[in-house]
Amino acid sequence: MSGARALEILALPGIPLVQPGDDLAALIEAALARANLALRAGDVVVVAQKIVSKAEDRAVALDTVTPSPRAQQLATEIGKDPRVVELILSESTRVVRQRPALLIMEHRLGFVMANAGVDQSNIAGKDGAEVALLLPRDPDGSAAALRARLSSRAGVDVAVIINDSFGRAWRRGIIGIAIGAAGLPALIDLRGNPDLFGRPLQVSIAGFADEIAAAASLVMGQGDEGQPVALVRGLSWSVPATNVAEMIRPAAEDLFR
Amino acid sequence: MSGARALEILALPGIPLVQPGDDLAALIEAALARANLALRAGDVVVVAQKIVSKAEDRAVALDTVTPSPRAQQLATEIGKDPRVVELILSESTRVVRQRPALLIMEHRLGFVMANAGVDQSNIAGKDGAEVALLLPRDPDGSAAALRARLSSRAGVDVAVIINDSFGRAWRRGIIGIAIGAAGLPALIDLRGNPDLFGRPLQVSIAGFADEIAAAASLVMGQGDEGQPVALVRGLSWSVPATNVAEMIRPAAEDLFR
Repeated sequence: MSGARALEILALPGIPLVQPGDDLAALIEAALARANLALRAGDVVVVAQKIVSKAEDRAVALDTVTPSPRAQQLATEIGKDPRVVELILSESTRVVRQRPALLIMEHRLGFVMANAGVDQSNIAGKDGAEVALLLPRDPDGSAAALRARLSSRAGVDVAVIINDSFGRAWRRGIIGIAIGAAGLPALIDLRGNPDLFGRPLQVSIAGFADEIAAAASLVMGQGDEGQPVALVRGLSWSVPATNVAEMIRPAAEDLFR
Repeated sequence: MSGARALEILALPGIPLVQPGDDLAALIEAALARANLALRAGDVVVVAQKIVSKAEDRAVALDTVTPSPRAQQLATEIGKDPRVVELILSESTRVVRQRPALLIMEHRLGFVMANAGVDQSNIAGKDGAEVALLLPRDPDGSAAALRARLSSRAGVDVAVIINDSFGRAWRRGIIGIAIGAAGLPALIDLRGNPDLFGRPLQVSIAGFADEIAAAASLVMGQGDEGQPVALVRGLSWSVPATNVAEMIRPAAEDLFR
């Protein structure tokens, strides 16, 4: 389309199934090359949590997990595999809510999410072993490392977001959300900027990284149609980069929970 | 960019300040024409709540508002104009949380949002009178009416989303969210679709309209830079259209609040 302020979002075709130890920067560069694309300054590369976790070998074979008494008790209450519950508890600081087969947890990184992000979909172990995939240990750090490699090899400064899909309070439907970011401001503080009539704007801190994560989700899809990397082109920002850690809302300032 | 699954998002330049009674379809067509764009089948037109409310004359002059005793009491507690509090209460079914100068309300339409969407930014009354702007009476209906006019006049079937910015539980930062939709599925139920290894996906209802609303927010901006209409091109869907009313999550199934 023509005109200013156009944003383009493209799912990169042909990213293969990711294995532990894979070099995501190299896989992304190869996919870009196949699509005849070169990274440009200001591009945002959005990567699905799942392939970051796989590359970082965050898959755990369930037959290696010994459930604690607490995990066994909780697993009985909600009717879930006690080994999976053990992994969920090990990734979390507290149970926010429980229901049959589902735990809403506060993840150790502060995210409030189903099953602390421990996921058994789109993953299989060797010889059919049952496995579960955990979130990356440090998604902001993973984003920073990937950004450094992509930027260095392309010779331009790009940003990286790692996204996942979260349920939400008050609304049905899961949406893409940022769990890691590097090279862009996760939040943009608009407070005090003038409105159309010169009055200072109130309560306006934009969730920039989350809006990008949601936008990228539209082209990344899910399940067997999933394309785990998207390129977002056309954004600009004028404030320093920050990461997703600053997006966690402390309880004392949270009026929505 | 090249390749399949590309999404383009463009803020339409030159939408004028909207007045009560303005024909939004005509304003949008004029902006499209100036940008040398014609609507195509499957385009999604995202319109900011603010201009829908203005066109529908949802601005209220504060000197016409008589606060109830309850509004006066609440206004004293939180330090806010009792006339604005009266409007907020009149738009709401309950107070979710209160804090100095801020009320988190359950809007009569089911949205949980700051001040029930009653907004004093980017609006001025005649001769400097103080005014506040309410949400459209029926945003899904407003979206349907605008969609009918745009589609009929363009001769192609387009979709419309009305978006606003909401704060959220657990996360800092406001993001674009759909308050009205027509011509597309607000939610897409992916449950039971196979994952990469043939296992049925769990808990996967995508918040499609909200992801589009967030994506459009990235180009629409805020304050004096605000561009209140965005065109989203390149999406596709295969399930029937539904509206935003179905996105309201009943308390009984909400584990995130």
